[in-house]
Amino acid sequence: MTPRTLSDLHRFGYLGPRGTFTQMALDAWDGARHEEQVPFGSVDAALDALRSAEIDAAMVPIENSVEGGVSATLDALATGDPLVVIGEVLVPVTFVLCARAGMPLGSVRSVGTHPHAWAQVRSWMASHLPDAVYVPTLSTAASAAALGRPGDVMFDAGVCAPVAAANEGLEILAGDIGDNRAAVTRFVLVSRPGTLPEPTGADKTTVVLFQRDDHAGGLLELLEQFAVRGVNMTRLESRPTGEAMGSYCFSIDFEGHVQDARVGETLMGLRRVCADVRFLGSYPRADGVRADARLGTADHDFDAARLWLEQLRS
Amino acid sequence: MTPRTLSDLHRFGYLGPRGTFTQMALDAWDGARHEEQVPFGSVDAALDALRSAEIDAAMVPIENSVEGGVSATLDALATGDPLVVIGEVLVPVTFVLCARAGMPLGSVRSVGTHPHAWAQVRSWMASHLPDAVYVPTLSTAASAAALGRPGDVMFDAGVCAPVAAANEGLEILAGDIGDNRAAVTRFVLVSRPGTLPEPTGADKTTVVLFQRDDHAGGLLELLEQFAVRGVNMTRLESRPTGEAMGSYCFSIDFEGHVQDARVGETLMGLRRVCADVRFLGSYPRADGVRADARLGTADHDFDAARLWLEQLRS
Amino acid sequence: MTPRTLSDLHRFGYLGPRGTFTQMALDAWDGARHEEQVPFGSVDAALDALRSAEIDAAMVPIENSVEGGVSATLDALATGDPLVVIGEVLVPVTFVLCARAGMPLGSVRSVGTHPHAWAQVRSWMASHLPDAVYVPTLSTAASAAALGRPGDVMFDAGVCAPVAAANEGLEILAGDIGDNRAAVTRFVLVSRPGTLPEPTGADKTTVVLFQRDDHAGGLLELLEQFAVRGVNMTRLESRPTGEAMGSYCFSIDFEGHVQDARVGETLMGLRRVCADVRFLGSYPRADGVRADARLGTADHDFDAARLWLEQLRS
Amino acid sequence: MTPRTLSDLHRFGYLGPRGTFTQMALDAWDGARHEEQVPFGSVDAALDALRSAEIDAAMVPIENSVEGGVSATLDALATGDPLVVIGEVLVPVTFVLCARAGMPLGSVRSVGTHPHAWAQVRSWMASHLPDAVYVPTLSTAASAAALGRPGDVMFDAGVCAPVAAANEGLEILAGDIGDNRAAVTRFVLVSRPGTLPEPTGADKTTVVLFQRDDHAGGLLELLEQFAVRGVNMTRLESRPTGEAMGSYCFSIDFEGHVQDARVGETLMGLRRVCADVRFLGSYPRADGVRADARLGTADHDFDAARLWLEQLRS
Repeated sequence: MTPRTLSDLHRFGYLGPRGTFTQMALDAWDGARHEEQVPFGSVDAALDALRSAEIDAAMVPIENSVEGGVSATLDALATGDPLVVIGEVLVPVTFVLCARAGMPLGSVRSVGTHPHAWAQVRSWMASHLPDAVYVPTLSTAASAAALGRPGDVMFDAGVCAPVAAANEGLEILAGDIGDNRAAVTRFVLVSRPGTLPEPTGADKTTVVLFQRDDHAGGLLELLEQFAVRGVNMTRLESRPTGEAMGSYCFSIDFEGHVQDARVGETLMGLRRVCADVRFLGSYPRADGVRADARLGTADHDFDAARLWLEQLRS
Repeated sequence: MTPRTLSDLHRFGYLGPRGTFTQMALDAWDGARHEEQVPFGSVDAALDALRSAEIDAAMVPIENSVEGGVSATLDALATGDPLVVIGEVLVPVTFVLCARAGMPLGSVRSVGTHPHAWAQVRSWMASHLPDAVYVPTLSTAASAAALGRPGDVMFDAGVCAPVAAANEGLEILAGDIGDNRAAVTRFVLVSRPGTLPEPTGADKTTVVLFQRDDHAGGLLELLEQFAVRGVNMTRLESRPTGEAMGSYCFSIDFEGHVQDARVGETLMGLRRVCADVRFLGSYPRADGVRADARLGTADHDFDAARLWLEQLRS
Repeated sequence: MTPRTLSDLHRFGYLGPRGTFTQMALDAWDGARHEEQVPFGSVDAALDALRSAEIDAAMVPIENSVEGGVSATLDALATGDPLVVIGEVLVPVTFVLCARAGMPLGSVRSVGTHPHAWAQVRSWMASHLPDAVYVPTLSTAASAAALGRPGDVMFDAGVCAPVAAANEGLEILAGDIGDNRAAVTRFVLVSRPGTLPEPTGADKTTVVLFQRDDHAGGLLELLEQFAVRGVNMTRLESRPTGEAMGSYCFSIDFEGHVQDARVGETLMGLRRVCADVRFLGSYPRADGVRADARLGTADHDFDAARLWLEQLRS
Repeated sequence: MTPRTLSDLHRFGYLGPRGTFTQMALDAWDGARHEEQVPFGSVDAALDALRSAEIDAAMVPIENSVEGGVSATLDALATGDPLVVIGEVLVPVTFVLCARAGMPLGSVRSVGTHPHAWAQVRSWMASHLPDAVYVPTLSTAASAAALGRPGDVMFDAGVCAPVAAANEGLEILAGDIGDNRAAVTRFVLVSRPGTLPEPTGADKTTVVLFQRDDHAGGLLELLEQFAVRGVNMTRLESRPTGEAMGSYCFSIDFEGHVQDARVGETLMGLRRVCADVRFLGSYPRADGVRADARLGTADHDFDAARLWLEQLRS
């Protein structure tokens, strides 16, 4: 199979509707700007469309600096036909409180938004609208869309991204109401296997590890596979396998590219000690931070060691 | 302060409304059966009431065998005034599809339920109601309550526990529709510090660990504190500290009681190498499984070692 | 260079003189029985002759179950032109007290033997000849040889192998006088690089590791290179590098053959983290014990992992 | 038992005869200068005299920067009635070649000295006296003593410390002939339990560890007991237990004093995982180097952690 390159991607799906933070992430991806963009109602729907080749890539949220891992994405990537991450985008998260024209802040009795957004404006709400009733919506943009549509709506105001409020012609009652002003969400661009970005020297790799058994010290053993080859983890998330209470797999990001020697040996080591290793791609880091290989773990160290071993064996 | 005992608890809060799995968990707790039970609209609200001494204890969900950790609970316990877990309850999760009398399955166009429940009936819905629109509600019981109230409702059917459907006099369109029949949710009974259950020999301890810095191998170092004293972890969950993308703390359950010698030394070790350790209680395991201390890590081994050291030092 | 095979070896050196335990080890080596055998006055002399191609192989003692590692051999192998171990022999150590005809045990006032042998008959001497003066000799056989030669001698009796006493026509005053009846000495047959025995499934490999710096935890880091690939050590000996007090290298034997995948990766790992790794050969174990590869560390596990990685990378 | 202090020691034994490096070490020990000094013929004899209270302390060699550990001392301390190290002395090792008056270097046909000394002048001998026959003696000083006595002697010249040659009125044929000019020998002052030097902040502790079984990774497990409490090893020597080939115990020096909290916990940890731990004393380092406790492992960190644990438990 000829590997696809990033420029072969033309139809991009994303977690919609228009006006979500996910669309902002897709807009920030150079290669998607002049291509087709297709909103989906859920992460699952977007990834299913990708698996069935309806689209070429999908932008989905994977991690929020306040709320943590996005379970729907983590689980959808960990099971089903294999997909791979080919890029990541960091988007600062800014929330506004918006309403139809003419609704003063003092009259707001109910607020609609996505549960994750609600969690991130909790303090602001407690001070400014302590008695407001919360109404969950399927996305932040959906709360704006509901307010934007003519007719009745279940709530007086919505919490969403500024762009969603603007899209729907809503009035901003309060801006930047997130409890954590530094909140950032990390999105990943996912594609089908066969697309592997070139190493840049500032890369990340994502895997899901399924342990052979839940024996004591199992996780320690997995982490040693990284440590002994000088590979740093940047995210570790445990996710239930669903088989039984206490049965977990681990979703892990670490520094380096599958083409790097130390990453290759680490992956082989994990493959040998795990029941299963799901490779979810190697891709350039959004922050561009280069991970200097620890002494003795650079590619040339591996090459020198291999040469030496070959001489011993011959 | 005289420590409270479990029999000093009389007002129990829980994540309501009536008919939730959380209420089922509270019903399963012997000491709460004949006491006052107060529903709360959110985990935060229940724990706030506990902190302000409005109630004596609160039952909240902490972990689901399919959906993983319950972020709201993990985060509420990890911050704010200290609380401690004093017991745990495992509840099998069984979902029914219910509706007002006279609504046949074939006519259902929209379904309301809590997002976590929706995630757990996804496959059943895809086969039986592929075109149904999903409407999020604040809890599974809330979907039943909405259907039970006279007047209009946003959806035709709800997904909830059998007891919630019964409470509201609804008809069961389909029973046991969960994708994973073995799904279990784990609930914890939380109280204020000062209540510490006695060791039973089959106990668990819960902590939150904040690393001193996010250096490579930091988690490995923490796990070694457990391993070297023969203490097994049963759950490890990473949660963002909120400070920056990639900054995580670890919510950990492990075998043993704070009064056990090996647990005490492990906790002291963690305290020394962590920026902060939040102790969230020692309590009897719901499954009653006794963790046999590994050779050399029983209390009498610690006692013998201490005696020996004292002799060396004198 | 065409590799030499074991049958290409015709001139065998050994730590002499005739009658030493080392000669017994050489006699136990099938391939040496009908070949030339050349005694040397010291381990250094034998290994120098091997390095200058005067002989094809040399049998030297490396480890005694009572006295420990043989420093002269360990140090001679760790420095100078490279040599490799190609086989090992275990010889039970049995000491006799012998003298010229007509010397009764009661008249023995002085005893000659090698210091290592003296250390191993200490208790017997303390009970039976508490007042005997000890006279060191260059080998156990040398004490017999001195008694066997006409003329004066510095001592009345010698401690040596039965064969040495027989060679010299001496009388046995007491047999099997070793304090530890189970004492065994391990000898290695050494050759020049280019001779590498085939893997048998029951092999050992010997290396000398020089650390990059004497940092804390340095040895721990080396041992983790073995542990993470499921390779067991069977001997670890620290030897001073001679550079400064406290500067040590490690002479290590471990299970497996350089051709085994897990040994190859372990060696490459050591090579990367050490200042230097000196490979001292892979050879069949004298005891024939097969080391079953731990789950996930057999050659086919490595092959499967490599194939998998290649697919990921392509 | 009232602990003895260093000033209670009046009779000092040492590995004699007069003129050995061991006597030089004893001379360097302030507290021994004006006290009785008793030479013994072997390390065993000196330590036996100490055990039977004939003497109060004994100075014996334990480690040489070129030749490594002194087996006789390591083994004598590891078995028998307990003894403890109460101090250490470093002595630079300088060898001279000496002979009776009138013997020119060119006429030397045979050289007597202790095997360890012979090993350390090997290169000098190979260049200057390549044909000289080597005659082992019981100590370096014994070779000088033999030459100093009237009558026949087995060799023409001796290798010993300058002081031994001077004691016997011998002529120096060549000075400073050691192959390694930086060679140093480390001596320890040993006493009976009951004498424990105060912590100075620059201390060492010595132990012998006997593993519970020779399982794979056993040594790794022991080293982790040190690592997890931030304790650095300065010497690790494996010594056969004598029970079987491959059965070893470990003689280990590490930084810190038994009264230090991190050392105490390490010792208790070792005691729990080992079949036996033999404590061989805590004493000031000869080089005065202070080991700064790693972050989180100072005594006050342990105190703070213990206080915290006590609060949790109450």
